[in-house]
Amino acid sequence: MGESLLPSHAEPNKGSLAIIGLGPGRRDYITPRALKVIAGADYVIGNAQYLDPLEPLLSGKNVIRSSMGKEVERAQQAIDLAHSNAVAIVSGGDAGVYGMASIVLEVLEHSGSEIDVEVIPGVTAANAAASRIGSPLSGDFAVISLSDLLTPLEVIEQRLDAVFSVGIPVVLYNPKSRGRPHNFDIALAHARRYLGAETPVAIVRNALREEEEVTVTTLANVESVKNTVDMHTTVIIGGKESRIWRMGNDVKGIITPRGYHHKYVY
Amino acid sequence: MGESLLPSHAEPNKGSLAIIGLGPGRRDYITPRALKVIAGADYVIGNAQYLDPLEPLLSGKNVIRSSMGKEVERAQQAIDLAHSNAVAIVSGGDAGVYGMASIVLEVLEHSGSEIDVEVIPGVTAANAAASRIGSPLSGDFAVISLSDLLTPLEVIEQRLDAVFSVGIPVVLYNPKSRGRPHNFDIALAHARRYLGAETPVAIVRNALREEEEVTVTTLANVESVKNTVDMHTTVIIGGKESRIWRMGNDVKGIITPRGYHHKYVY
Repeated sequence: MGESLLPSHAEPNKGSLAIIGLGPGRRDYITPRALKVIAGADYVIGNAQYLDPLEPLLSGKNVIRSSMGKEVERAQQAIDLAHSNAVAIVSGGDAGVYGMASIVLEVLEHSGSEIDVEVIPGVTAANAAASRIGSPLSGDFAVISLSDLLTPLEVIEQRLDAVFSVGIPVVLYNPKSRGRPHNFDIALAHARRYLGAETPVAIVRNALREEEEVTVTTLANVESVKNTVDMHTTVIIGGKESRIWRMGNDVKGIITPRGYHHKYVY
Repeated sequence: MGESLLPSHAEPNKGSLAIIGLGPGRRDYITPRALKVIAGADYVIGNAQYLDPLEPLLSGKNVIRSSMGKEVERAQQAIDLAHSNAVAIVSGGDAGVYGMASIVLEVLEHSGSEIDVEVIPGVTAANAAASRIGSPLSGDFAVISLSDLLTPLEVIEQRLDAVFSVGIPVVLYNPKSRGRPHNFDIALAHARRYLGAETPVAIVRNALREEEEVTVTTLANVESVKNTVDMHTTVIIGGKESRIWRMGNDVKGIITPRGYHHKYVY
């Protein structure tokens, strides 16, 4: 249960490859399954940012600290080692959401190798960030990355326009990076085609990590705070039904109603 | 860190309300933070399906087992108790994705009460199901519920059409229920307007739970297996770029490439 099935012809003590999502980074948001598999690994591969919180667990292991970029090489290295070692390659958040899962499996499939693979899910940034501001997603939502390194900007714009046009909350990953400071403005322009000035917008930086910063604003007022958006930020743009959540005089976050108010009085 | 800030005028030993996502259900996919907060709770409220795996932890606590429906009453009860007790209300998956977070916060806001609230994120079904079939999401994706209890079917259809039209993977929650057997066919019809017959489709039932069943098929062939879709199922319909992932002769799942193949050779 939870483990992938070995191919029927696999020899015992063959290698294995676990592709693991670590969530926002802190130990208390990493699943026990992820921790167990990392504890049993011979090799652990990942960025320093996500390996550092694991430190005591990595004692005695072969740890390969990678830098941003070079994902294809990192995937290849993980697969090469996994033929005869227990390998864990880790991503922040969920490895299947802008993480390493797809490139590792693409390279694996292309190699023709047959290796025992397990993908371990984690808490992705959309849900980590949302949890810091109440319930901005609640139901239907979309996740769009503003990084046009691998996806043409015109495709990103089509997707943004489509999801904003149907009034669902939208989570923006990679909202701003060096050399791409303008994509966030482009996204806001698409949102404003369909959503009113009072539509809530949340800027969540370092969700559930040290130096966490949460800003709740609106489409009208986001210009004054958008310089806080960076590569450690998740932006959530509310949908048609979303509103600011207040407790007393404090702005606590965003609520997107599920629709109970159409049927019940409370 | 991780805890919400008490309003500045709050008295010590006042109650608290934690809204918790338990992930797919098994203990080894529940975050340590969630377990810690549950361990410290006076009252734990939730469905039996998600409370049962917590059993040893619930010893000595006031446990309120709720049935499906009656979410407004459950939310009200949690808030009433949270004035002077540590209350944990739990959902499967992530509480902010078709869980209890929004209704609890709506009722709370409407009540005018000021209570210490913490939303604890969990692994939502989209990511749990995706992890069982490789990397079907990978990048941009949308999450749509086919339950029209709270959202009009015409709104659901507009959303389905919009997200399928831009070729991103789509995760269907609540794909079928008693009295609503046809919404899945409606969703498939919208998908087929834009996606080819070979587009991969995964039906993941009880992801990471006992009696897990994973079926990988295509838009062309899903008719023959769609009777397996029920209320414990997450369906993932691939996007324009998605393909079946094979290892040797075995169908392992779905890969949606991130786009590295446009830039790198591997």
